[in-house]
Amino acid sequence: MPPAPSAIPRPVQALVDELSRLPGIGPKTASRLTYFLLRQPLEQVRALAEALTALKERIRFCSVCFNMTESDPCPLCLDEQRDAGAICVVEEPLDVIAVERTRSYHGKYHVLHGAISPVDDIGPDDLRIKELLGRLRGPRPVREVIVATNPSYEGEATAMYLQKQITPLGVKVTRLARGLPVGGDLEYADETTLARALEGRSEM
Amino acid sequence: MPPAPSAIPRPVQALVDELSRLPGIGPKTASRLTYFLLRQPLEQVRALAEALTALKERIRFCSVCFNMTESDPCPLCLDEQRDAGAICVVEEPLDVIAVERTRSYHGKYHVLHGAISPVDDIGPDDLRIKELLGRLRGPRPVREVIVATNPSYEGEATAMYLQKQITPLGVKVTRLARGLPVGGDLEYADETTLARALEGRSEM
Repeated sequence: MPPAPSAIPRPVQALVDELSRLPGIGPKTASRLTYFLLRQPLEQVRALAEALTALKERIRFCSVCFNMTESDPCPLCLDEQRDAGAICVVEEPLDVIAVERTRSYHGKYHVLHGAISPVDDIGPDDLRIKELLGRLRGPRPVREVIVATNPSYEGEATAMYLQKQITPLGVKVTRLARGLPVGGDLEYADETTLARALEGRSEM
Repeated sequence: MPPAPSAIPRPVQALVDELSRLPGIGPKTASRLTYFLLRQPLEQVRALAEALTALKERIRFCSVCFNMTESDPCPLCLDEQRDAGAICVVEEPLDVIAVERTRSYHGKYHVLHGAISPVDDIGPDDLRIKELLGRLRGPRPVREVIVATNPSYEGEATAMYLQKQITPLGVKVTRLARGLPVGGDLEYADETTLARALEGRSEM
């Protein structure tokens, strides 16, 4: 049964509704967050609102590697210190941060923005695979593609698909070592495990 | 070890930091939410930002009952259909919504904004108790105060304190029946349990 109309002021209900659209946040958590924000100083709430707007206005995806960036191409793609002969392929921008945190990798990246998942109706054409193959056929020779998709069913399926597409191009394809717990999520791996997995990567 | 500086664009880190300040949201959840928002249409993120700003600009606390409201006094205080002879005292604005949802109560409200808690250094003077006593001494006679603080240690201590202060004024003080699970939180009670507790309220 909905509460009497006068009980919840409209701006409160509006924020509860917007927060409820976020993943993992139900109406109860949204209410709690709203009431918390109501008691915070105006400056803190304004800082959050401005950070949200700035995110959408200032962040785009790099046209080369599809990582999130303020400038296009992104600093990682422009960095001449990084080895352009290696491309580490990940599912999401957060995975780039996880790999960078190991300080064990100094090549380039490519963000697929997902993984092949027949259940969710996500096929190779829904990912940035075409663009990855384009980079491999481009003027700068690539020696190795490190497939760092998640050690999940979808990540494995994506890795298999990439290997079939890339091997004919004469580029070595490697996969992170199975130091990663199967069924887990790349971004939650600790630095040491992830660094170990990078060192022990095997050719596909 | 922090990631290399170029890995996380500043507007992304700024939003992660702001979201991490919310209760129950750690850096990992904040990262996930940020990445989710990055993929949402500009309109949805702008709607969230505007809802945040509107909350702080348009919502204040009623100068009579201290519930959240757009106009002062709030619609519940101005509503002549509601019984001004009964005041239901709750800890938080969300509790008003919970009681309204039962459709079993048609009196007025008073929001304390907390409960007495020596551990957290919250005493009677930190709550809106002075203002409640002012209402009871005011020109409109109040017949009954229904203490609907949480069935927790702090809520009980607050109820005891209120009873001692109010009884000398010749106003009946009642407490919600112990249909509520002890140690729980008022706003999570289902409508039926809360309605039952209202019906079975007992004089203190």
